[in-house]
Amino acid sequence: MNATPSSTPSSTLTFTAEQQLDDDVLERRFTLDDIPGFLWTPASATPAAPAPLILLGQPGGLGMDRMYPRLAGRARHTASAGIATVALEAPGAGSRPPLPGADQARADLRTALAAGEPVPDDVVDRLVLPLVDRSVPEWRSALDALLALPEVDGPVGYSGGVIAVGVRLAVVEPRIVAAGLFAGSYVPRSTVDEARRVTIPVHVLLQWDDEGNDRQAALDLFDAFGSTEKTLQANLGGHTGVPAFAGDDAGRFFARHLR
Amino acid sequence: MNATPSSTPSSTLTFTAEQQLDDDVLERRFTLDDIPGFLWTPASATPAAPAPLILLGQPGGLGMDRMYPRLAGRARHTASAGIATVALEAPGAGSRPPLPGADQARADLRTALAAGEPVPDDVVDRLVLPLVDRSVPEWRSALDALLALPEVDGPVGYSGGVIAVGVRLAVVEPRIVAAGLFAGSYVPRSTVDEARRVTIPVHVLLQWDDEGNDRQAALDLFDAFGSTEKTLQANLGGHTGVPAFAGDDAGRFFARHLR
Repeated sequence: MNATPSSTPSSTLTFTAEQQLDDDVLERRFTLDDIPGFLWTPASATPAAPAPLILLGQPGGLGMDRMYPRLAGRARHTASAGIATVALEAPGAGSRPPLPGADQARADLRTALAAGEPVPDDVVDRLVLPLVDRSVPEWRSALDALLALPEVDGPVGYSGGVIAVGVRLAVVEPRIVAAGLFAGSYVPRSTVDEARRVTIPVHVLLQWDDEGNDRQAALDLFDAFGSTEKTLQANLGGHTGVPAFAGDDAGRFFARHLR
Repeated sequence: MNATPSSTPSSTLTFTAEQQLDDDVLERRFTLDDIPGFLWTPASATPAAPAPLILLGQPGGLGMDRMYPRLAGRARHTASAGIATVALEAPGAGSRPPLPGADQARADLRTALAAGEPVPDDVVDRLVLPLVDRSVPEWRSALDALLALPEVDGPVGYSGGVIAVGVRLAVVEPRIVAAGLFAGSYVPRSTVDEARRVTIPVHVLLQWDDEGNDRQAALDLFDAFGSTEKTLQANLGGHTGVPAFAGDDAGRFFARHLR
C-alpha cells in the first residue's frame, strides 16, 4: 500500500506490554501519544509477508477494558485468516477525558426515550458527531504509525463500532478498502449524505429488533451507500444478539477483500 | 423423518431418464403423475446414509427447460454438501396447461406497470395465489414419493422460487425445517399474514434494486416471519444480479440446518 498523508501531524506509537495468545497471535498494548490501544498480529505476519489490517471500532462509551474479551475474541478469529487487528480507546471512553457536551447529549437522549418520542436530530448530532470528528483523525494517525511497522501492511478494513465513524472513515481515508459496519447506533442525517460518497464494498449488519436503533434510519443509510458492492444482513434479535454465523459471514467479507 | 400425510392422494413417481454429472451427482428425470421433474442425488446418498433434500422452487412461468442450467448448477453445488435436490415443473409453466386467469392477471399487471401505478392488490392476488394453491399440494405429493426412496430421507429444506409458495409450504408442511427464500416476486397481503405463522429458520435474499419487486413489501414480509431465527440478506443490484457469495451464504444456511 502507498502511504497517504493523514489529516493530523504524526503521532508516536509506543509498545507498553505484550503477550502471546494461543501461541499464534501476538497481543501488544500500545499508546499512540496518549491514546491506549491493542495490536493483534498473527504469527504469519512477518516483514517478508506483512499482514492486512482491520481497524476494530467499538461501541461508544464502553471502554476497551470492558470490551476486551469481545475484542480479543474477534482478534483471534481474524488472525486465523492471517489478518492483523487494532483497537483504539475511543474519545471519551475508558480513562480518556469525556467529550465536551456528551453528558448533556446523553441526558437529552434519555429524556426523549423516556417520553417515548423520536430522538430529535440535534440530539443525535450532539451525541455522535463530536465522536466522529475526534475519532477519525485518531484512526488515521494510528494507520500512519501501524502501516510503518514491517509486519503490517494492507489493505485495510474497518469493522464495527459507531456506524457514523465508519462512514466518515470510508469517505476520507483511501487506505481503507472495505468496511463491515454495525447498524447499532444513532445515525445523524449528515451521515446519510456522506454515505452517498462511499464507493468501497460495505457489509452492514443490522439487528432487526435493536432497541437502541431506528430500523428505518439504518435502511435509509444502507440505501444511500454509493458502493457497487453492498450487502445488508439483518438478523432477528436485539442489539447484543448478533448470531455467531453473522460474525463468520462478516469474516468472509473481509477475507474476500483483504487477502 | 416420520411420514406426514399430505393433503393430496398419493401420486406415482416414474423415472424416465438418468445421467451422471461430474461422476458424483446422479441426475434423474421423472414424472410425478403428469408433472415433469428432476432429482439430483450426491454419490454419498445411499440406503445406509440417505441424503437430506432441498426443494428447488422456480420463478413463475419460465419453465424448467429454460431454467435447467441454473437449476443443475445449484444442484451440483448442493450435492457437494451431501444434499439432494428436486425441481418440479410449476403449474402453468413449460408444457403444463396455463393456469386459469393467468393471462388476464399478467395483462392487468402490464397495464398497471405501464401506467406507473402501484400494482393493485387484486392483481397481485390473481397473479400469485392460484400458483400457490396449485403448487403446494404438488410439492407435498412429491415429498411423499421422494422420501419413500431409500437414498433420500430428510430433513427437508425449501429454496428459492415464488416467495408466496415458500411461505405457504413453511406453514403447512411440517417436514420442511428450513426455508431459503428469494424476495423477487409480488407478495399478496395474505402471504404477509401467513408469514406470522412460520416458525422454522428462514434466510431471505433481497435484491435491493429489483425492478420486479416492491422493496417495502419484502421488508414487511421479513418483519412478519414468526421464526426465532431469521436472516435477511440484501445485496445491491437487480433481479438477476444475485452475487455468487450470496449463493454460498444460502448454502451454508442449509448446511447448518439440514446436516
